[in-house]
Amino acid sequence: MPPVIVLVRPQLGENIGKAARAMLNFGLTEMRLVTPRDGWPNPAAGPAAAGADIVLERATVHASLAEAVADCEHVHATTVRKRGVTKPVLTPEQAAHAIHNAQGRSAIVFGPERSGLETEDVALARTIITVPINPEFGSLNLAQAVILCAYEWSKHAAVELAQPSIEPLLPPAPQAELEGLIGHFETLLEPRDYFFPHSRAVATRLTLRNILTKPGWNHLEVRTMRGVLSALARRPEDSRD
Amino acid sequence: MPPVIVLVRPQLGENIGKAARAMLNFGLTEMRLVTPRDGWPNPAAGPAAAGADIVLERATVHASLAEAVADCEHVHATTVRKRGVTKPVLTPEQAAHAIHNAQGRSAIVFGPERSGLETEDVALARTIITVPINPEFGSLNLAQAVILCAYEWSKHAAVELAQPSIEPLLPPAPQAELEGLIGHFETLLEPRDYFFPHSRAVATRLTLRNILTKPGWNHLEVRTMRGVLSALARRPEDSRD
Repeated sequence: MPPVIVLVRPQLGENIGKAARAMLNFGLTEMRLVTPRDGWPNPAAGPAAAGADIVLERATVHASLAEAVADCEHVHATTVRKRGVTKPVLTPEQAAHAIHNAQGRSAIVFGPERSGLETEDVALARTIITVPINPEFGSLNLAQAVILCAYEWSKHAAVELAQPSIEPLLPPAPQAELEGLIGHFETLLEPRDYFFPHSRAVATRLTLRNILTKPGWNHLEVRTMRGVLSALARRPEDSRD
Repeated sequence: MPPVIVLVRPQLGENIGKAARAMLNFGLTEMRLVTPRDGWPNPAAGPAAAGADIVLERATVHASLAEAVADCEHVHATTVRKRGVTKPVLTPEQAAHAIHNAQGRSAIVFGPERSGLETEDVALARTIITVPINPEFGSLNLAQAVILCAYEWSKHAAVELAQPSIEPLLPPAPQAELEGLIGHFETLLEPRDYFFPHSRAVATRLTLRNILTKPGWNHLEVRTMRGVLSALARRPEDSRD
């Protein structure tokens, strides 16, 4: 079940919009807001959502984090730095795995832009999510934290996300076509003394064969290279210009 | 080796700053800019970088993508949507894995905010990176695309993998050497009318570039192919026999 994204005391409407956009990019649609600073709805959220209006329209507002996650079986609190907490700390990847395998509804809770979640907020969660980040430069904003969690969740999601090109690449040309190309090279190179001296000819042919075998060119590509060779075999002065 | 992040024709300084922040969060520091729309430095970048000044200060500006990736053995182009490309398409996770295991320097290339990379830019890359995203709402901004790639890379960077003691394969030649080979082909083919008719010339050049980019030839192989081309350019009757 897709996790609920809970923003606790978010400050800027723009960031709420960006979080919505980040969510929808990876198929998440359920946002809950705990006492947003500037009220709700917030006119700055829409433009920043860049079309993810459905997330904003369905967002619900809650008086407390406890109320916002009341129906959730699994509450994960995101924190930038580890504090003196005695809860399991997960990466976004591990959390996505846990959420995917969980029975019941999960929530991922994000704190205010500037300060992050308070200790009392974290106390409601069973686990902590911390993004492993450059220890010398931890500067992840709200929408970025949301997108990393949503992205990791989407990897597990049964949702039909666009998969990178299922469209298969053409297979390498059959060996006979490759041989034809290699033979074509050799036929042209032979009278141009490429295989001179003869003591090196075997090794040179082998090198050429290896180079031409490496690409795994498909039959279209082999055909194109045959055309290139035919052109190269012409004398420049034979040309139309 | 950490990948280089290349932003091609970025429009807003603010987005360059955000990309820098996203990079440094996950330990990436090398940014290259190809003809940023508003020049460089850009006063809007600093505030958006939120402290990632070191990335902006070290950023270099380049006149073309080819120049920006000239010293990179592995060029990955990010695209939002599938096009009719015949290159391997990786998720950020798969790309991070590939980059971590690669010999030599890798570049991840991002297009302008509004339009993404042009086909000619993608043609320089050996692989495509596409983030699997909600097919009904694909709205990933530049900094978000950068942060997902940087985040995935950082997962691998944290782990010190024991390098196998097997002699590694030579890495692909740096992009500049590949460009030299492509240029050599074009120089020979031009006067032989290969690019005729002119209406097809752009597409034909692109096809040739893609075919020659696919192999990932190392510098020895590229050198050998240059020798092959020099031989092919000779007239058969010039030969000793």
